[in-house]
Amino acid sequence: MASTQYADFAQYKEQRAALISSDRALRPDHSTAVSAAEAKADKFVRELRAAEAISVWATEHEGVPHPFPGMEFLTGRSIILKTKLFNVLSKMPKGGLLHAHLDATVNAEFVLKIALEQPALHVRAPAPLSALTLSTILPQFSALPRDMFPDSGTALTDASYSPGTWVSLKNARASFDPALGGSEGFDKWVIGAMTINPSEAYQTHNTVNKIWEKFTSTFAVGNGLIRFAPVWRQYIYEFFRASVEDGVSYVEVRVNFYPKYMFGEDGQENIPHRDWLEIFDATLGEFKAELKSQGREDEFIGARIIYSTLRFIDLEELAWYCEDCITLKQEFPHLIAGFDLVGPENVLKPLIYYAEGLLRFRARQKEAGVDIPFILHAGETLGDGTEADVNLYDAILLGTLRIGHGFSLVKHPKLMETCRERGILIEVCPISNEILRLTSSMLMHPLPILINNGLPVALCSDDPAMFGNMGLTFDFYQVLVASEVSGLIALRELARASLEHSTLEPAEKARAISAWGKRWERFVEAIADL
Amino acid sequence: MASTQYADFAQYKEQRAALISSDRALRPDHSTAVSAAEAKADKFVRELRAAEAISVWATEHEGVPHPFPGMEFLTGRSIILKTKLFNVLSKMPKGGLLHAHLDATVNAEFVLKIALEQPALHVRAPAPLSALTLSTILPQFSALPRDMFPDSGTALTDASYSPGTWVSLKNARASFDPALGGSEGFDKWVIGAMTINPSEAYQTHNTVNKIWEKFTSTFAVGNGLIRFAPVWRQYIYEFFRASVEDGVSYVEVRVNFYPKYMFGEDGQENIPHRDWLEIFDATLGEFKAELKSQGREDEFIGARIIYSTLRFIDLEELAWYCEDCITLKQEFPHLIAGFDLVGPENVLKPLIYYAEGLLRFRARQKEAGVDIPFILHAGETLGDGTEADVNLYDAILLGTLRIGHGFSLVKHPKLMETCRERGILIEVCPISNEILRLTSSMLMHPLPILINNGLPVALCSDDPAMFGNMGLTFDFYQVLVASEVSGLIALRELARASLEHSTLEPAEKARAISAWGKRWERFVEAIADL
Repeated sequence: MASTQYADFAQYKEQRAALISSDRALRPDHSTAVSAAEAKADKFVRELRAAEAISVWATEHEGVPHPFPGMEFLTGRSIILKTKLFNVLSKMPKGGLLHAHLDATVNAEFVLKIALEQPALHVRAPAPLSALTLSTILPQFSALPRDMFPDSGTALTDASYSPGTWVSLKNARASFDPALGGSEGFDKWVIGAMTINPSEAYQTHNTVNKIWEKFTSTFAVGNGLIRFAPVWRQYIYEFFRASVEDGVSYVEVRVNFYPKYMFGEDGQENIPHRDWLEIFDATLGEFKAELKSQGREDEFIGARIIYSTLRFIDLEELAWYCEDCITLKQEFPHLIAGFDLVGPENVLKPLIYYAEGLLRFRARQKEAGVDIPFILHAGETLGDGTEADVNLYDAILLGTLRIGHGFSLVKHPKLMETCRERGILIEVCPISNEILRLTSSMLMHPLPILINNGLPVALCSDDPAMFGNMGLTFDFYQVLVASEVSGLIALRELARASLEHSTLEPAEKARAISAWGKRWERFVEAIADL
Repeated sequence: MASTQYADFAQYKEQRAALISSDRALRPDHSTAVSAAEAKADKFVRELRAAEAISVWATEHEGVPHPFPGMEFLTGRSIILKTKLFNVLSKMPKGGLLHAHLDATVNAEFVLKIALEQPALHVRAPAPLSALTLSTILPQFSALPRDMFPDSGTALTDASYSPGTWVSLKNARASFDPALGGSEGFDKWVIGAMTINPSEAYQTHNTVNKIWEKFTSTFAVGNGLIRFAPVWRQYIYEFFRASVEDGVSYVEVRVNFYPKYMFGEDGQENIPHRDWLEIFDATLGEFKAELKSQGREDEFIGARIIYSTLRFIDLEELAWYCEDCITLKQEFPHLIAGFDLVGPENVLKPLIYYAEGLLRFRARQKEAGVDIPFILHAGETLGDGTEADVNLYDAILLGTLRIGHGFSLVKHPKLMETCRERGILIEVCPISNEILRLTSSMLMHPLPILINNGLPVALCSDDPAMFGNMGLTFDFYQVLVASEVSGLIALRELARASLEHSTLEPAEKARAISAWGKRWERFVEAIADL
């Protein structure tokens, strides 16, 4: 072979450099403009990463048998928090968050705290709680109308507790058996049911399908508290606040409209979708006004909603949701960004089942004079040729604007090419994928394949409330420490892509990118002092 | 986007079929000739796989918390053995075994059994064995010259055992403390030190670097028994026998020539490399004659050796091994197939360290009138841009004929293209990769990426003695059950590629492929009755 003959070793080294360069040519951080300050900051970050790989990750940590950079997040989280690199990244302007489920975005402790302030909120259990049953019995929450408030305050932990009896949230907490930890025991029980812990993810539920069962149950529990208008309002505000605190300046969040109503302050389940959007819009307005009053309006461009329903509905129901979505888009054109069907792809209906209905939806949009792009989950699976994997073909044929997860996309050469050519961004959720057992650690994640093939990618947190990866800093951290190729410039391009591939209108988008760019420059200048 | 508009749903479905087909167009099992018998056999295999996914894999198995097809091999092995699909595949003609380390190819029980027949073989330990130390103390084996045979037969388990004292293998076994299991306890201790068990791979040593430590120690222990000429001879014969029994008709095995001598029957460490090859050649001849006498010569085409040394030698030592390899090639041109440097890539020297020396080796080959292609390990790593990952560039620049492992190759678009264009086959070792913790299960393995991108691939067992994946049936099984795309025709192409990409001379290769093809036809015809 001609190309394996060299005049001398110098020529070998030249060709080697050329080969490495051509192999990386499709990366967004390859042959891109890098300022002197960025080059310096990149060097700082690479040196810090290398130093902490030894000073932090190669030392012993109690209860963590095998620490390494990019390790299982739930086990490694406390170690990550000890690193200076995490602190540096927490200050980084991250661009937009393009893939998160609203019901899963706010810290469970915060949700419980604000829920406890609501007299209408109640809790019940299918059996009295005891030391034996505490870890398997899940709480059920609901708002109740005043005339249904229970008279007495039987404790859930009382042997005489009558299964299914509602207890006010406050009373349930106050009366929780001291032998089971009292009020703190109550909090632990509730938070445990709303989050995933390391022993669930890595031991008892250590397969994709098993951890999804636990994951699904966290939504069922949390929704009882969140889908109550007074809580929802505060919840949304906190989501925005925490996002901005982490350097996220725009969110495009999936809201699950499967339930047709949420509970109102009066404890009736009668708040329709349009009112949800009104609350969302008003809260967004308040939050932006608050930031503006502090001179911080460039820190948050806004928020939009990807209308979502669940991938188990039938075709008749799909048609209802599509019409509902069009109606909402007509009233709130600035809020509705796209449409998706969500839920565990490995067990729910494939996209092909909905395809004809979804094409009809596009035709109906034209008639209605609106444009609601598909932004579909697809390929969130380990399957090879399974329905979940095959969803990628349908997502692309349906014209999806981006792909949610696309974990199995790397198996598909033609689809990789199509995504690159059409600029279909992949919403990659590193920590979510790992906790949901698609990858064992960040080191096995296919992200470098996407980046090296020139596909646009944004990093997303997916369900930070359940996973504990609040904000985007943890996801950026995991990605950065699992590679020797990616440095600060790669992170810059990931952040920039999240804004470029948002559904913002051209003028808003330009403003968002420009505001982010200015903050990026300040971040880079200050990096050594963070 | 024009290509996401359809006249009607029929057109959508047409374009969908076309897209799926074009995505799979580079696969070797795509648009290839398939006989009626093959189509029927493929259907049979797919139905059997689907049925057993439920009847076997979805049922409970004691001690296996999460069974699933393609699961961790060491835990799932006993379940695999219960399947009919495994039995069917065990009869499949597999083609050649292109990647295995000779020291790691024969069942540890067999090795111990033949070793026990050798009076020259002795064992010692660095401390007396007790219930407490049994799992951490490793045996050390060696042949001894007769005048060094120990007088007494102190038991290794005797508190008075003097550390480091040699005991004859037979005596050590016979005198093993009954409280520690007696002779069976001795066997268990030895076998445990020569193999990897599930709790090591998946718990105590559950990272790439930790399991490599255990893995390396199994070689150190086993070599004390294997590198003794009388054992070596029987060992090689058993390797051939077991390979043929599993349907492997050709082997190209890596022999580690790092030690310059092995022990002879007289207990002296004085058997040089050329005598190793003489023994190998003679044993091969005997084995082939034996098969021929049974009219089975088409079941085994032959065996060749990839000369290997270890990736920690310096450049001066490299030059010595290169000259040694040339000398052996001159004397045994039919046996020496290629050259490699082996050992854990993540911790040993990178190929770039050896590159200039290896180019000089090619020049020296020309002068000497021989051709010894590189067949290099590269990219056996989870690293992204680490030295082990970067080894892939050097392997290709050095003109490697095939790539050993190439686990991280899928991250490199340009190298993928180069391998496809030049026909550089990837020696994929599914079970090895999983046990050495590069992938958690077969479902996360990048093999489908290689296949879908049209790269030639052969399945290999790597170190079956340590992993328990004797033959190639287990590896084929794991690959088949982890995909819905691959069926029997994909396995046919993997088997065929192993012969096509061997170093056999054109005429031998044609004969090998033709013999394999005839057996394949018989296998396919008989498949429903297996």
